[in-house]
Amino acid sequence: MEISWEQSVRYSINTIYLLFSAYLVFVMQLGFAMLCAGSVRAKNAMNIMLTNVVDAVVGSISYYLFGFAFAFGDSSNPFIGTNFFALKDIPNASYDYSFFLFQWAFAIAVAGITSGSIAERTQFSAYLVFSFFLSGFVYPVVVHWVWSSGGWLSSSSSSNLMFGSGAIDFAGSGVVHLVGAVAGFWGSFIEGPRVGRFDAFGKPMPMRGHNATLVVLGTFLLWFGWFGFNPGSFDKILVAYPSTTDQGNWTAIGRTAVTTTLAGSTAGIVTLFGRRLLVGHWDALDVCNGLIGGFVAITSGCSVVEPWAAIVCGFCAAWVLIGLNILAVKLNFDDPLEATQLHGGCGAWGLIFTGLFAKEEFVIQAYNSGVSGVVRPYGLIMGGGWGLLVCQVIEVLVIVTWVTVTMGPVFYALHQLGILRIPIDEEIAGLDISSHGGYAYNAHQEENQPRFYADYMRMQEQS
Amino acid sequence: MEISWEQSVRYSINTIYLLFSAYLVFVMQLGFAMLCAGSVRAKNAMNIMLTNVVDAVVGSISYYLFGFAFAFGDSSNPFIGTNFFALKDIPNASYDYSFFLFQWAFAIAVAGITSGSIAERTQFSAYLVFSFFLSGFVYPVVVHWVWSSGGWLSSSSSSNLMFGSGAIDFAGSGVVHLVGAVAGFWGSFIEGPRVGRFDAFGKPMPMRGHNATLVVLGTFLLWFGWFGFNPGSFDKILVAYPSTTDQGNWTAIGRTAVTTTLAGSTAGIVTLFGRRLLVGHWDALDVCNGLIGGFVAITSGCSVVEPWAAIVCGFCAAWVLIGLNILAVKLNFDDPLEATQLHGGCGAWGLIFTGLFAKEEFVIQAYNSGVSGVVRPYGLIMGGGWGLLVCQVIEVLVIVTWVTVTMGPVFYALHQLGILRIPIDEEIAGLDISSHGGYAYNAHQEENQPRFYADYMRMQEQS
Amino acid sequence: MEISWEQSVRYSINTIYLLFSAYLVFVMQLGFAMLCAGSVRAKNAMNIMLTNVVDAVVGSISYYLFGFAFAFGDSSNPFIGTNFFALKDIPNASYDYSFFLFQWAFAIAVAGITSGSIAERTQFSAYLVFSFFLSGFVYPVVVHWVWSSGGWLSSSSSSNLMFGSGAIDFAGSGVVHLVGAVAGFWGSFIEGPRVGRFDAFGKPMPMRGHNATLVVLGTFLLWFGWFGFNPGSFDKILVAYPSTTDQGNWTAIGRTAVTTTLAGSTAGIVTLFGRRLLVGHWDALDVCNGLIGGFVAITSGCSVVEPWAAIVCGFCAAWVLIGLNILAVKLNFDDPLEATQLHGGCGAWGLIFTGLFAKEEFVIQAYNSGVSGVVRPYGLIMGGGWGLLVCQVIEVLVIVTWVTVTMGPVFYALHQLGILRIPIDEEIAGLDISSHGGYAYNAHQEENQPRFYADYMRMQEQS
Repeated sequence: MEISWEQSVRYSINTIYLLFSAYLVFVMQLGFAMLCAGSVRAKNAMNIMLTNVVDAVVGSISYYLFGFAFAFGDSSNPFIGTNFFALKDIPNASYDYSFFLFQWAFAIAVAGITSGSIAERTQFSAYLVFSFFLSGFVYPVVVHWVWSSGGWLSSSSSSNLMFGSGAIDFAGSGVVHLVGAVAGFWGSFIEGPRVGRFDAFGKPMPMRGHNATLVVLGTFLLWFGWFGFNPGSFDKILVAYPSTTDQGNWTAIGRTAVTTTLAGSTAGIVTLFGRRLLVGHWDALDVCNGLIGGFVAITSGCSVVEPWAAIVCGFCAAWVLIGLNILAVKLNFDDPLEATQLHGGCGAWGLIFTGLFAKEEFVIQAYNSGVSGVVRPYGLIMGGGWGLLVCQVIEVLVIVTWVTVTMGPVFYALHQLGILRIPIDEEIAGLDISSHGGYAYNAHQEENQPRFYADYMRMQEQS
Repeated sequence: MEISWEQSVRYSINTIYLLFSAYLVFVMQLGFAMLCAGSVRAKNAMNIMLTNVVDAVVGSISYYLFGFAFAFGDSSNPFIGTNFFALKDIPNASYDYSFFLFQWAFAIAVAGITSGSIAERTQFSAYLVFSFFLSGFVYPVVVHWVWSSGGWLSSSSSSNLMFGSGAIDFAGSGVVHLVGAVAGFWGSFIEGPRVGRFDAFGKPMPMRGHNATLVVLGTFLLWFGWFGFNPGSFDKILVAYPSTTDQGNWTAIGRTAVTTTLAGSTAGIVTLFGRRLLVGHWDALDVCNGLIGGFVAITSGCSVVEPWAAIVCGFCAAWVLIGLNILAVKLNFDDPLEATQLHGGCGAWGLIFTGLFAKEEFVIQAYNSGVSGVVRPYGLIMGGGWGLLVCQVIEVLVIVTWVTVTMGPVFYALHQLGILRIPIDEEIAGLDISSHGGYAYNAHQEENQPRFYADYMRMQEQS
Repeated sequence: MEISWEQSVRYSINTIYLLFSAYLVFVMQLGFAMLCAGSVRAKNAMNIMLTNVVDAVVGSISYYLFGFAFAFGDSSNPFIGTNFFALKDIPNASYDYSFFLFQWAFAIAVAGITSGSIAERTQFSAYLVFSFFLSGFVYPVVVHWVWSSGGWLSSSSSSNLMFGSGAIDFAGSGVVHLVGAVAGFWGSFIEGPRVGRFDAFGKPMPMRGHNATLVVLGTFLLWFGWFGFNPGSFDKILVAYPSTTDQGNWTAIGRTAVTTTLAGSTAGIVTLFGRRLLVGHWDALDVCNGLIGGFVAITSGCSVVEPWAAIVCGFCAAWVLIGLNILAVKLNFDDPLEATQLHGGCGAWGLIFTGLFAKEEFVIQAYNSGVSGVVRPYGLIMGGGWGLLVCQVIEVLVIVTWVTVTMGPVFYALHQLGILRIPIDEEIAGLDISSHGGYAYNAHQEENQPRFYADYMRMQEQS
């Protein structure tokens, strides 16, 4: 039986949309690599870039072998999936290869967040262990809970929505960012601050990254990639809403790109001016961090809130970030990329924000294909009751707990075995020379010679 | 009433096309940031990158609140739009969120052009003022004139085309590039050259950017983004031409990508060889500037000229750029990014070029969906009469005038108030240390230690 | 006669797919530029970036004028095409502008591979000669043989498939990578190693690139671009397979993206661990090279093998690369980018791999639109007989021979005329200062002043 023309058109359009979104999400891995590289000292640049590349290549294999199965295996098990190992039975009626690729791009991002928290002082072999465990098991399980149709906290399940709602974490403020951040918190907490980050009296010492250009490059690439991350999470663009006259997923997708842009921009501006007041100068790196904080926060509710609400989301995200950064310094907590504060704090805020501002019409668009007559909780402030907000809080709590009880012991065991943190002399020397065979940058002495050579040439020409 | 299958397909396809084009245009912001950063001295890299990030974040909010309304508000007012503030009444039959996002990406580019002209010597607070005024008011008004269906100079208006034609500025050689360049000219002219750019006798001193790699990176990213800028300006890809057997917008879009590529490439080659003759060496930065000049020039006529004509366009654009650069040095005019010469000179040439080489068939494709029987002026050299060329000249004149009378006073007022240019000691020190809290690059002394450390390790191993 | 709705939809969808894939392939040119720049010494960075930019701009004009005609001119001539010069008769029933753009992006990549092999010691004018000859003639002829419907070795010809099969080189392990590598081999072999690469006893001296960040940036950009290169080579996404219930090109395209990812990732991991065993440290640059080697190898068979086979492909590609690199050092062969080993060795392996592992069903999908009942050879190990493998071996041999007899004499003539390699003093000084007017990086002395200035400011504030 041949496939119909309409089905061919539908599959083609949706596959183009999902694949190119996946490619954009993949760019975020490059964005993280550049952001991280620029934010650490030059002597550790090679190390942190290696961890980002390794996240991608190791994640490809582990997500292919079992990560995707744990996450989207459609068993009746609400805790973990148990089929589709090594893409067995893919493609099927629910999932095609393009969906795997999209989800793969998400999976490799998680360990990247954590690697920022433990940068500049972690043994590479310890990195391999936790990265494999985090992206191969801890993260896929959370995905199964929240995003798979069988998950116990899922908002797209066809039956048994918790409190009639389930948690709305559209593109993963919690599933991706909070998971990575909690893991990073424990790693960073157990390792302790970098040598020299705080003096003997607990006063913070400046420890600037080596290259702000890379930070800006990485931030813009993350912005670019977020257009795949958030709008792309609709998976399908060719979905018409039966109850409206002129809308379908295409409109909701455009709106999602707009809310993402507005939240990030607002957080960037607020951070710029807020830090100007606090610190006294205009800091490009602050705008970059603010931007990313705004993106992280809107990631949960991007598809279900009005553009004006996205501005509220970004405004608060900036102050969450600024506040947590002040707190971290006070507590002598050292996360070189501010990943705990940024992905954790803004990620948690994003989940709560969605519970407050989600709009009924948009929730039904995103989770019930715009079918009229559906009744489900939505944002508390919008008059939608407590059902959604409670689920959002549950997601925050359950993610913090789950990642703590899984990743905490891993980091603690590595620490006790003495294979988590590098020796102090290697840390002072830098990871690149001690573990990776050399520095990222090489300025040869011979490069000073050409000046004389050029003079010599000019003299010869004139004579 | 449910939306039809055909409409769903049409909206989905056109939205995918427009959104991904918008994402590409957004990449140009990153391209500008890298190009600018590499072209200035290291001590000002942070400053110029901050301006590029700020263009994006401030532009997002101002374009959302009123910029889009001024530009595309469909009032009967041919001067300025007056509805759609804060996306009110969006989506509607004419505009969806994806169109807003595409136009937003254009809007944030304008101030980026100007920031190049006034680089390395402008106060950041002055930057905030002019940037907000330029991209929030001056630019959207020009958009309304030329691109909105109600604009007095528009070529897509359904009624009352000026001289039966209106100006053809398909993706904005004038609307975007000339506007940014004229603003930059006045800023740069009022501020005067950077300290040390010309000696006491008016002789130019070398003042090279600090990083050519960033220039090449930025140029390639701009090229990549231009594939969204020019072909993307069709907005819709699923438009069949009724009078031809096998063509629609999809063919015209592909042709537009080809003309863009050929014009840029030709200008790059001509600049490479032209400068080789003039200066005596092969300069990568010249090819980069030539490329961008060719892109700027073809932006107006990209959709309405034959590929061979694009080569003519690029050839002349290169000489316009080379000539204006020689003139700028003669006049002791200092535009660190050559933005006035490049975006202004090549932008104006692009508008004239379109008036000469636009092909009848292609004009009807791009502006009348290929409807047969339409009669309208086209390129003078192609036999299409003077109507179009006169409109093109009018666009050049009116943009120069409008931007001069609006931005000129702004820069002059800032100058008179003493808040435009930074003090000379801060300029010598560099903006990064005086205004932004530190340099973009940090090479810590401790990084010299590891060599001894490595030697020490090796000695220990051997003993 | 108006075009039908179905045709409009089909053309729109396929054009979107092909154009955006072309844009991704174009990004590879940027990826190459960054990878090459980072891999050479700082004194030659400008030179190698210029060659990459020049490949693109010169290639645009030559491919427009005659390259595309040589490659896809649909004459009865199985050796070389003879129509479509300067896009005459484009668009037609077979080719639209989007197809030209996609192929253009491939063409400009070839010379980029070769430029890596001869980096840091070649005269720029020699570069212009060979680049024009390679991408304008040598490469298009191979394309005509293997990819055009009239080619004698083509696997998509409607008649007279060699051994009933033709060579399967889906996206060009041979056509693109092996061609570029063989040319690079001869250039590098005839020029000899860089000064100082091997000491008087033939012992290799360390000669590290100047910037590992650029290498990582380039590698990720190449990965991003490869999603256009391999899946994009289907050209059309809206092709339903008549004999299957639920599949069409969209599924095969997703699977191709997955095989590409898995092969590259596997090769990256294996190179990381393999080199760790051999050299003793974790090297980010090795993972990058391994990744690219895996991509090169899977490029031939990406669309016709199972995901698990892609892992086999990448595993072997890593060892091919590691082995050839050891061999190159033994033979005192100096290819600064390892391009001969990587694009040549892994490219040849990729062709053989396809002859071993191509799956019948997938071959019929990719080359016969999934029509049932077609009988043709496929992978030897999969039970498909020797027909395909023999054609693959023929492609390797014929490419090595053809590029040798065409490019070998070109390099030899340039060498004999004394215009291939730069003089030794210029090589020591670096190409940038001797040929390109200055270094890529400029750290002005004045930049040391601000520290005193900042101190001075602080003192003033305190007093």
